[in-house]
Amino acid sequence: MYKGIAGSEGIGIGTVVLIEEHEINIETKRVEETGAEIERLQNAIEKFVADTNVMAEKMDITVGKKDADILRGHIQMLQDPMIEEQISALIISEKITAEMAVEQVLEQTAEMFSQIPDELLQQRATDFRDIKTRMLKILLGIEDVDISQVPAGTVIVARDLTPSMTAGINPENIEGILTEVGGRTSHSAILARAMEVPAVLSIENICSIAKNGDKVVLDGTSGEAILNPDDETVEKFKKMYSDYQNEKALLKEYAGKPSQTKDGVKVELVCNIGKPADANKAVECDGEGIGLFRTEFLFMDRDSMPTEEEQFEAYKEVAEKMKGKPVIIRTLDIGGDKDVPYLGLEHEDNPFLGFRAIRYCLQRKDIYDIQLKALLRASAFGKIKIMVPLVTGVDELRQVKAMIKDIMAELDKEGVAYNKNIEVGVMMETPAACMMADALAKEAAFFSIGTNDLTGYTMAVDRGNAKVAYLYSTYNPAVLRAIKRIIECGKKEGIMVGMCGEAAADSKLIPLLLAFGLDEFSVSATSVLKTRKTISDCTMDECKALADKVMVCVTEEEVLEILG
Amino acid sequence: MYKGIAGSEGIGIGTVVLIEEHEINIETKRVEETGAEIERLQNAIEKFVADTNVMAEKMDITVGKKDADILRGHIQMLQDPMIEEQISALIISEKITAEMAVEQVLEQTAEMFSQIPDELLQQRATDFRDIKTRMLKILLGIEDVDISQVPAGTVIVARDLTPSMTAGINPENIEGILTEVGGRTSHSAILARAMEVPAVLSIENICSIAKNGDKVVLDGTSGEAILNPDDETVEKFKKMYSDYQNEKALLKEYAGKPSQTKDGVKVELVCNIGKPADANKAVECDGEGIGLFRTEFLFMDRDSMPTEEEQFEAYKEVAEKMKGKPVIIRTLDIGGDKDVPYLGLEHEDNPFLGFRAIRYCLQRKDIYDIQLKALLRASAFGKIKIMVPLVTGVDELRQVKAMIKDIMAELDKEGVAYNKNIEVGVMMETPAACMMADALAKEAAFFSIGTNDLTGYTMAVDRGNAKVAYLYSTYNPAVLRAIKRIIECGKKEGIMVGMCGEAAADSKLIPLLLAFGLDEFSVSATSVLKTRKTISDCTMDECKALADKVMVCVTEEEVLEILG
Repeated sequence: MYKGIAGSEGIGIGTVVLIEEHEINIETKRVEETGAEIERLQNAIEKFVADTNVMAEKMDITVGKKDADILRGHIQMLQDPMIEEQISALIISEKITAEMAVEQVLEQTAEMFSQIPDELLQQRATDFRDIKTRMLKILLGIEDVDISQVPAGTVIVARDLTPSMTAGINPENIEGILTEVGGRTSHSAILARAMEVPAVLSIENICSIAKNGDKVVLDGTSGEAILNPDDETVEKFKKMYSDYQNEKALLKEYAGKPSQTKDGVKVELVCNIGKPADANKAVECDGEGIGLFRTEFLFMDRDSMPTEEEQFEAYKEVAEKMKGKPVIIRTLDIGGDKDVPYLGLEHEDNPFLGFRAIRYCLQRKDIYDIQLKALLRASAFGKIKIMVPLVTGVDELRQVKAMIKDIMAELDKEGVAYNKNIEVGVMMETPAACMMADALAKEAAFFSIGTNDLTGYTMAVDRGNAKVAYLYSTYNPAVLRAIKRIIECGKKEGIMVGMCGEAAADSKLIPLLLAFGLDEFSVSATSVLKTRKTISDCTMDECKALADKVMVCVTEEEVLEILG
Repeated sequence: MYKGIAGSEGIGIGTVVLIEEHEINIETKRVEETGAEIERLQNAIEKFVADTNVMAEKMDITVGKKDADILRGHIQMLQDPMIEEQISALIISEKITAEMAVEQVLEQTAEMFSQIPDELLQQRATDFRDIKTRMLKILLGIEDVDISQVPAGTVIVARDLTPSMTAGINPENIEGILTEVGGRTSHSAILARAMEVPAVLSIENICSIAKNGDKVVLDGTSGEAILNPDDETVEKFKKMYSDYQNEKALLKEYAGKPSQTKDGVKVELVCNIGKPADANKAVECDGEGIGLFRTEFLFMDRDSMPTEEEQFEAYKEVAEKMKGKPVIIRTLDIGGDKDVPYLGLEHEDNPFLGFRAIRYCLQRKDIYDIQLKALLRASAFGKIKIMVPLVTGVDELRQVKAMIKDIMAELDKEGVAYNKNIEVGVMMETPAACMMADALAKEAAFFSIGTNDLTGYTMAVDRGNAKVAYLYSTYNPAVLRAIKRIIECGKKEGIMVGMCGEAAADSKLIPLLLAFGLDEFSVSATSVLKTRKTISDCTMDECKALADKVMVCVTEEEVLEILG
């Protein structure tokens, strides 16, 4: 039995498909037998040609002959005498391996094309780099698994799941996920929970232990996995699986019910979403609105800025889908750790402490202006509120509000409809914002606490860094005090205070958050009913008594002893 | 006239020496005239040989014949027929430039040697890389200026001053420093202040504007520089120079005086130092002790751990030099942004939020144990106090104190003397420590506020990142509130609260810090007398009235309007 981190609830029973991520490492070495290397090269080229023909035939059907022919062109490019002969000659003259020669010649050729200011020839550079990568993988024996093609009943085993790996993934076929790295807030965990696929993360060496075709059972709630289980275990997990499904059915009873404590204190229970289509899921799961709509999806995976119209359509879509329920939209929250070339973001030594989110937007008002205008226009179609991320003080909020005022004047002139009383709030996630919460509460229409970043910044910890992740805990008394202070400052000024970080769905923390006075819990759609049940089981007296006990603790250990 | 950041006080008048940092960029291109490339190669080799002989002759005298002979060996290595012929052959067969061929052949050769597990042959790899770099610089026409060799009357103009560039610098010859990047807390600024050389930093494009040999005057107090000034301006600056020297002489009057406000409130005025020899300067400048002795110097620029004995000697040296005055020694504060291979630190995406300082030491108790033992042994020779950096909560402090207790038991057994009542304090520099300051004050013997990191973490800003440096300000109300809270929590428990960050010497902030109740100001040796004068000019009533006005401000702008 292998223990890991409980990343996504549920029971999984299935067959291992190992997803190996290969780095292409070319060893630098001299060879004596250059003849053997020439033969390896010839074999690789043959395989390249055969593979390409198969892929192209598939593409003829799936995407059309035109794109398939581009791929066929790669065969001619590789077999061009100048290229092929150059590679062979380099192997012989330099006594190097076929990999080294392929890398050198194809990279040089690509580089040559890339330096010619002609779009068509620059595309040729991209083609040569594609050819190079595929040739090197063939020579090094690296085979890629296509994660979108795994059969039904698959349990994916991978070091980590990256966004690009999971493009086109079909959750129907995935019974579970096991990874070597990642915690509850990693991309793998968030993805698994969004797909409602059970996942156990951070299992040491699981990629070396599990083999393709192994049977496996896993419990995403306890964080356990068993490889090649005996019949008895399989039966046990089948029982657990049906129990889990029953419990899920039980939660369904909370659908349509109000979100309130046993003694009748009402709160808002809303959803975090990443793209307009997710709003359907929020409605389905009985979310009472959107507490965090991340707008980064509009800017990622494309070559140019989304237009005002594109943005307007996306914001309007969510506003309309939510039919007058509140929709909090966070403005662009992006920085140098994301690869979005057209935004001109540069590599930074400490991207989490760098040029990102509102810092970027206030320097690039050309970009921010478009987003704010699209948001204002969309505000005519539902209850949109604007949330500003990574704020450190009132001056940033004032600047955003001044921009909004100017855009409103423009829209008035153009006769375009918008909500004149649109609420502009602050995502509370920096220690500075926490220290200044009293002042911010006087000028913000609402707060929403981003516990993930607030925890990281307060503890001075990058949660993605395994060596210090032990310090990253929302249960740490320093973080709990910060949360309490933010809620109290907001309530004192009579504004709504919500939470859109992971903690809002944590059944251990919910009683504390209720005691502090949190008004709004923004969780993933799949956590709505469970969160509502947790809230319904609370009474305010119990919550306050618990909070009194917890808030005198000075270590995380003491806190967890009380919260269990 | 060019404006920049006032990096180090004083007036400078001198002649520009431009320090250009060259990246070695080899353009990938094909050549038709390979004959011309062969000739360029031959000329470069000739120059390499001639330069090397000159350098070696100098070294015969300065460092001895043995080291000079190693350099002479480089000539033979480069002229080895296998190497030289290989480079020429590659130029001809590949039709590439001499640079490309030199890079390829020498790098390959170095790589080959580096893979052989023999220390001597691995040194050969380092030699080949040295040869490669020097050959490439010759071929690309890059000339390095030796900063230690600049003539008297020099004003250095550089993009930035890095530690390696300034090795062997002679402050006698440097009248001023102008840079393109860096703020008041950059390496350039700290170095300039330590050398008492005036500096203006962050002057846009100064490296492109200034030419070698240009006359220049600069004012490191206002942050201004004028290139090729007219006679009138030069006269003005000569007058300012003598005024500045007079003022400095005036400050000398504060030597030997107590550090107290006009109305008699005494504080401790101590020094920040980086190595044992700096203690002399602290004594010379009338520092009343050491408020921060950074111990990283013991670990940097070497291939193996410093022994307990080496550390003991260093700590003892400072303790003895300070003759019973307090000496606060900070334990190892190092992370993945520093290159200290034997510590096994890895590259991190966000090193400031990573595995460093006490986090590292508590995982590497083998290393920390040695340092703590050396500190305890040295505590028998003066008034040493131990300071723990990057603390986020009481549990870390408790772990350190438990380790110290164990080591004390060991020393008792061995009959080794140490101070049984040694004080263990906390460097207050994380938002978490600020939030938990009340709890920490109950278990720490003292606090010392590290304003540099406290400001960075509170504002969620990497101060080294020029794009967001505008947010890095100790005048920000969020930071001032954090400082106030830490001081108040410390005073409530009756422990000493000091400050060892840049802010402790800032004349604008000193009245506030006095009002908050700060006990100890730890500044650079050169700032002692000025800081004492600033303190002497204050009365507590004025300070408190000022603090009352400042602490209702909600923006940095408002704060600066009051502080001037």
